[in-house]
Amino acid sequence: MATYVFDFSEGNKDQKDLLGGKGANLAEMTRIGLPVPPGFTITTEACRAYMANGVLPPELRVEVTMAVRRLEDQMGRSLGDPRHPLLVSVRSGAKFSMPGMMETVLNVGLNDESVHGLAAFAGDERFAWDSYRRLIQMFGKTVLGIDGDLFAQALDAHKRARGADSDTGLTAEDLHDLVLDFKEIVREHTGKDFPQKPREQLDLAVEAVFGSWNTERARLYRRRERISDDLGTAVNVVAMVFGNLGEDSGTGVCFTRDPATGRSGDYGDYLPNAQGEDVVSGIRNTLSLADLERLDPAAFAELRQAMRTLENHYRDLCDIEFTIERGKLWMLQTRVGKRTAAAAFRIAQQLVDEHLITMDEALERVTGAQLAKLMFPQFDAAAEPAPLATGMAASPGAAVGAAVFDSATAQAWAADGRDVILVRRETNPDDLGGMIAAVGVLTSRGGKTSHAAVVARGMGTTCVVGAEAVVVDAAERRFAVGDTVVAEGDTIAIDGTTGEIFLGDIPVMPSPVVRYLEDGLDAALAELPVEDDETRELVAAVDAILTHADSARRLGVQANADTADDAVRARAWGAQGIGLCRTEHMFLGERRVLIERLILATEDAEREAALAALLPLQRADFTDLLTAMDGLPVTIRLIDPPLHEFLPDLTDLSVKVALAEERGETGPDVDRDEHLLAAVRRMHEANPMLGLRGVRLGIVIPGLFALQMRAIAEAHAARLAAGGDPRAEIMIPLAASIMELHLVRDEADRIIAEVGAQHGLTLDIPVGAMIELPRAALTADRMASVAEFFSFGTNDLTQTTWGFSRDDVEGAFFHEYTEKGVFNVSPFESIDRQGVGRLVRIAAEEGRATRPDLRLGVCGEHGGDPESIHFFHDVGLDYVSCSPFRIPVARLEAGRAAVVTGGGDTR
Amino acid sequence: MATYVFDFSEGNKDQKDLLGGKGANLAEMTRIGLPVPPGFTITTEACRAYMANGVLPPELRVEVTMAVRRLEDQMGRSLGDPRHPLLVSVRSGAKFSMPGMMETVLNVGLNDESVHGLAAFAGDERFAWDSYRRLIQMFGKTVLGIDGDLFAQALDAHKRARGADSDTGLTAEDLHDLVLDFKEIVREHTGKDFPQKPREQLDLAVEAVFGSWNTERARLYRRRERISDDLGTAVNVVAMVFGNLGEDSGTGVCFTRDPATGRSGDYGDYLPNAQGEDVVSGIRNTLSLADLERLDPAAFAELRQAMRTLENHYRDLCDIEFTIERGKLWMLQTRVGKRTAAAAFRIAQQLVDEHLITMDEALERVTGAQLAKLMFPQFDAAAEPAPLATGMAASPGAAVGAAVFDSATAQAWAADGRDVILVRRETNPDDLGGMIAAVGVLTSRGGKTSHAAVVARGMGTTCVVGAEAVVVDAAERRFAVGDTVVAEGDTIAIDGTTGEIFLGDIPVMPSPVVRYLEDGLDAALAELPVEDDETRELVAAVDAILTHADSARRLGVQANADTADDAVRARAWGAQGIGLCRTEHMFLGERRVLIERLILATEDAEREAALAALLPLQRADFTDLLTAMDGLPVTIRLIDPPLHEFLPDLTDLSVKVALAEERGETGPDVDRDEHLLAAVRRMHEANPMLGLRGVRLGIVIPGLFALQMRAIAEAHAARLAAGGDPRAEIMIPLAASIMELHLVRDEADRIIAEVGAQHGLTLDIPVGAMIELPRAALTADRMASVAEFFSFGTNDLTQTTWGFSRDDVEGAFFHEYTEKGVFNVSPFESIDRQGVGRLVRIAAEEGRATRPDLRLGVCGEHGGDPESIHFFHDVGLDYVSCSPFRIPVARLEAGRAAVVTGGGDTR
Repeated sequence: MATYVFDFSEGNKDQKDLLGGKGANLAEMTRIGLPVPPGFTITTEACRAYMANGVLPPELRVEVTMAVRRLEDQMGRSLGDPRHPLLVSVRSGAKFSMPGMMETVLNVGLNDESVHGLAAFAGDERFAWDSYRRLIQMFGKTVLGIDGDLFAQALDAHKRARGADSDTGLTAEDLHDLVLDFKEIVREHTGKDFPQKPREQLDLAVEAVFGSWNTERARLYRRRERISDDLGTAVNVVAMVFGNLGEDSGTGVCFTRDPATGRSGDYGDYLPNAQGEDVVSGIRNTLSLADLERLDPAAFAELRQAMRTLENHYRDLCDIEFTIERGKLWMLQTRVGKRTAAAAFRIAQQLVDEHLITMDEALERVTGAQLAKLMFPQFDAAAEPAPLATGMAASPGAAVGAAVFDSATAQAWAADGRDVILVRRETNPDDLGGMIAAVGVLTSRGGKTSHAAVVARGMGTTCVVGAEAVVVDAAERRFAVGDTVVAEGDTIAIDGTTGEIFLGDIPVMPSPVVRYLEDGLDAALAELPVEDDETRELVAAVDAILTHADSARRLGVQANADTADDAVRARAWGAQGIGLCRTEHMFLGERRVLIERLILATEDAEREAALAALLPLQRADFTDLLTAMDGLPVTIRLIDPPLHEFLPDLTDLSVKVALAEERGETGPDVDRDEHLLAAVRRMHEANPMLGLRGVRLGIVIPGLFALQMRAIAEAHAARLAAGGDPRAEIMIPLAASIMELHLVRDEADRIIAEVGAQHGLTLDIPVGAMIELPRAALTADRMASVAEFFSFGTNDLTQTTWGFSRDDVEGAFFHEYTEKGVFNVSPFESIDRQGVGRLVRIAAEEGRATRPDLRLGVCGEHGGDPESIHFFHDVGLDYVSCSPFRIPVARLEAGRAAVVTGGGDTR
Repeated sequence: MATYVFDFSEGNKDQKDLLGGKGANLAEMTRIGLPVPPGFTITTEACRAYMANGVLPPELRVEVTMAVRRLEDQMGRSLGDPRHPLLVSVRSGAKFSMPGMMETVLNVGLNDESVHGLAAFAGDERFAWDSYRRLIQMFGKTVLGIDGDLFAQALDAHKRARGADSDTGLTAEDLHDLVLDFKEIVREHTGKDFPQKPREQLDLAVEAVFGSWNTERARLYRRRERISDDLGTAVNVVAMVFGNLGEDSGTGVCFTRDPATGRSGDYGDYLPNAQGEDVVSGIRNTLSLADLERLDPAAFAELRQAMRTLENHYRDLCDIEFTIERGKLWMLQTRVGKRTAAAAFRIAQQLVDEHLITMDEALERVTGAQLAKLMFPQFDAAAEPAPLATGMAASPGAAVGAAVFDSATAQAWAADGRDVILVRRETNPDDLGGMIAAVGVLTSRGGKTSHAAVVARGMGTTCVVGAEAVVVDAAERRFAVGDTVVAEGDTIAIDGTTGEIFLGDIPVMPSPVVRYLEDGLDAALAELPVEDDETRELVAAVDAILTHADSARRLGVQANADTADDAVRARAWGAQGIGLCRTEHMFLGERRVLIERLILATEDAEREAALAALLPLQRADFTDLLTAMDGLPVTIRLIDPPLHEFLPDLTDLSVKVALAEERGETGPDVDRDEHLLAAVRRMHEANPMLGLRGVRLGIVIPGLFALQMRAIAEAHAARLAAGGDPRAEIMIPLAASIMELHLVRDEADRIIAEVGAQHGLTLDIPVGAMIELPRAALTADRMASVAEFFSFGTNDLTQTTWGFSRDDVEGAFFHEYTEKGVFNVSPFESIDRQGVGRLVRIAAEEGRATRPDLRLGVCGEHGGDPESIHFFHDVGLDYVSCSPFRIPVARLEAGRAAVVTGGGDTR
């Protein structure tokens, strides 16, 4: 038979599935002997039974009766006792914290009689009536479903009548009258009296918590967060304790160590003669824990002991809520505490130093997202700037620039080389051009899933949203914060990590972590002031943990880099090779003319001349790259984008030619433009992403791939001849079928053998395939018979699997999709496991079935995304390749993936 | 122990894997007692052993010795006997006929001595020396690998010396000298004498056949045709018989019934005193079988009996090669004969009528491709037009139009409403516009995989390629065939089914099969002349077989139709519903302005006004459609294409606006254009195929899907109220995730309930998803929890799975891809089983796992493709939906899929 009720003394912290997060931690504290008010948890299983049958299970009623009796025995009071009533709180507590559910009803057990008992016990009539009216108000709204405004209006009426500004202006008598009004509201809107039987109150509250699991809002939230509808919620029933029974009572929150620095010690706030709500509402100034020590040394000592116990027990920073009722300490809640990125590293290392956790565990306690935060430049704290306003931190970084109020100005000023910050009430797809041009984006409306936030995060642009104090007047090209008016062109600064907005130029400090990553620990420490303990400790912690990650990880980390300069930088940051060298970037600038000549050639001879001119240039590119990465693999992708990308835009050129014609202009320039226009028209594609590109180019344009492959082979041979250790690899882009690979590979083998023979060398240059189309993944068993390695191009794979191109849709509808819960996060940012990930898994498994030593890597942007890296580890890839800046993040997360069991939180 | 050699008396026709096609049929004829020259087959297993070890297996040598002895005993002659030599032919014979392999060496066994014996036996010195020189020539080239030109040059030298035009001008002495020269060539190029030992000749020839399996050309061919490299080829060694030993000898080919009409009888050609080569070369005019009956009644009677035996045995039209050597009939080869489309139907029905085969077997004997051919209009045979020239039939149909020689003229004239035929030497991607505009395409170069052929087939445009007699002079805008000159604008006609080219207008006859399909058998027969037996028989056969297909098939056949007119037509042709109604076509013409208003709306009120104006129009559309398909399902897809498709082209409008500005034009039109241009720019997408379309539109544009869903629900309700039996279904396009389906489905459920309540009716309108993105297929288990049916949109699914858009790439590189063997056939034409098909299978299986009664259909163009229909049958779909014209093909192939075991040939 199911047990639907667990006393706090029966559960433990690992039973979150059954008891919810709150209940499990209350049980744990009880178990280890901390002073938790007696109580019990009604399990999620009871909730599931309720959902299945629509009524509370009959056994539950019996079990609750037994649990209440136990509680009454422990407390020496009983529910509804007119002289000495037991009151309880009823709180929901699911496995995952979940807005949209009913949360709390306090003071359950009060009725027209027991309110007098409470008054007597508390020695405070006003307190008792206020508690009673709160019960009716909360119960009426959340359990009985009465519009909360009705209660608020009645309260306001009493305040007005009394001429009071706040609740505290009401007397016990006023509150007594208010209770009568509240009960009338209940009667009017439910046709019944407010339930006077405490057990009825309790049962209705429990049923309301269960019912709230399936409200529209809760279901929508779960759908978005991918939380199963089947989990259900638990309910915690806890004996009420009061921190507002006089100066020997109080309430507070504290941390077992400083969540900002990680230092061990007593950090927290205390408010005498108060309840938890009063701390949160911030009406009164809180005291420090040191003050508590002074006010009540005994209670303080007990709290301190409890903190130590909790930290040793959870082996992590704990966040605690407590109440002192007439000198007696009660622990109301605990959980592992949130912390800043810097604190996470420091605390992890401190816990290692204190021998509380292992290095593996330290690695579990930090995330790549935290490391990335530490790598952003920050405003110089020494400048102590005062923020003009604060909004929501939507996309990290520190940006300084001229305020502009429309997309066109942003683009025009940016084109002139100015840094601009685009300020809008909110953004929409029309603002995309301006957002791209700006160094930062600031909006006065919208939240973390607004258009501005989603798009800016996608682009990596610093962004603050929802700064409500900022009043934007786009027509007048200015914004105001209170009396301060900021006009177009005025310099502002925004902090995407804190959400702060500053007026004027704020100096930006490079990150000490970046200094460490670039030049090593000694150099970074040497640059820091001796007295800056915190930063020194931070850099040392990052070093220790990252070093451990390197030793723990199975995944290799390579870089996406196109030039020797990039390669040198990537190598310094820890790259173990180049996983993706995009050769098209080598055809920009002055060389563009050669590609243009190649495209416009009508005779074989012209085309061959252009190719011949490109050969030594490409050879030099690759030689430099192989030199920079001597001894490490360099995976060179053959040219991928449609060639017409190297030609002018069709619309621009059409207008130019039409105008020249209209004006009767003639001459060689006009002729050239007309000739060019014909070529642009001929090569125009409705959907270039799905057009003549990648391996298709190599098969259709004679000599193009051969040129690149020859240049690679010659560079490889030259490095070998010079005594180097080149590790060039050729990667074929966009193949969808084994035949495409055969055609290119046959040519590659021929050229490699030919160049080798010319140099009297055997060239070992593996040829592999970029897996970036669904068909390539679905036919990986065949592809692997020709390809010596696979590199997943997850950007393109995401585009084709979902059928949308990043350029076209991120601005147009991703914010709508995020808002409506289709995505939690853009699939371009973090890999979509069900769709794209399934293809990666299929290709990895079936490719390896054909060729057991098939090397597998990923070179899409997901290679630098924490969540995705864990997936790639699980799937068994050999390495990830990402942009140089993401390499430390990838190293850390690859290490975490190797030690974290059951998929740790990555953000 | 493996048996590597099978005597013809040991095998049978089902052993094609082991004996090859030719060997299996020779064994079968031997087995049933027909006079096949004695011989044996060396198995494909021997070939595989040879490939594995690089040498002929030793057991094979022994087995060949035994087989040759048996042969010598049977023939009473022995290999190399100087007086009475046995000669044999050595022929390759793989399971699949395969160009690129060594085919035949005749006269093996001749040497310097036995040549005299042959001369004595034949009574013809010249014949013997000619046979010997042929052996050395064939053997030298194919077995010894000597350049064939060397022999040809030596032959030419002798002809020149003798002043002879052809070989026949050479005497026995000349040929004797030629043999000496040939042997000298062999000695010079191999360093060895031409092998005199017959057994050595035989072994070398066998080894050469095996070796030819792995030539570059053969491997390339197999790669293209997806034939496994492991199969290997068999070798047939057959005693030589001679049809050229005098007037009592001869050779011929015949069919057991007329391959054109199917009539039983004696159809064939006979050439007295000749070998097979002479029949094929067409130097001499052949006689009919009736002549043979006159010349040699006994041999004729025996042949006739053999033909009857074969037909009864194979229960099909057989194609036979035979030789008569001095009055003795020898059967050299047989196989099931090729036939025209019309003959296929007639023969199948005749065989049923003759109780030789069942109706199920009749269904196996015809194909959808053949039925499709019968549905094309044809030139009126009664006009007896004389073709001007003949090329290769590349894309069927009969086209008449003005000859044009460049793409621009084709487009200009077509825009003026003229039918044009584009005539080019060959086409390239620049000609695409002209090919689209033309009713037919004619080229003088290229084969069936040329650009012109591939693109025209893709578009369904009539096309003839490689008409070498046609000399195109594009500069002069004319072509010539001999003395006939055809100028631009002259009317020509091309027959894409026969490859014929005609001058002038030829009347085009509608297909009698189409008449039958539209109006039934009685109407079609009533229209045909009583004496036109052939056509009457054909139409009746089509009716009988198609009716049987309908009763046999499991797959439903529905139509893609957008209007009530199309629906009526489709229903008449046998459609069992509408599987795809594209609603975007309903927004063309006058209604386009409403969509434009919707797009350009800046206020909600404007947008709502446009939607309100569209509602009654859409309702009327759907009411008409549901009326036409009363009682049958009508699956209506919500609007799919990007809205900007309803706006003008960006480049055109940009030029227009720039010119207006340049000219200083002003006024409301200019203002409107500028306003429009801003909207077009804002909505411009780099890759519209991957942009804001399908369900994304529905989620992002408020009210758009709701309008359509309301119109569907109202039309459904109106038809119910009118006593009809409407079966509307709503299909959501381009969904990639369950959340998209949730969002639309929630709205659909709300609207359907609302409209139902308004009418006091319960509306049963299923809501399903179009599965056209890889992600939809990969997450089908989830999708099926919301969708009540899946319809595979295999066009889009092919685009995203392969990562190319049909519009962009078919013209640009499909001919290259077909040429190089990446495709056998465009994946847009016939479903790609490995890639796209795998996704269909995954979605079907996993969707049904979630919802066992999930209805599954396909509405891409593959729904009308024979090969694909068999696949959809195998995967277990419920129906295919295709264009009305393809419905009969789909009905036939769905029937075939149900009866064919092991996947019959579909084309």
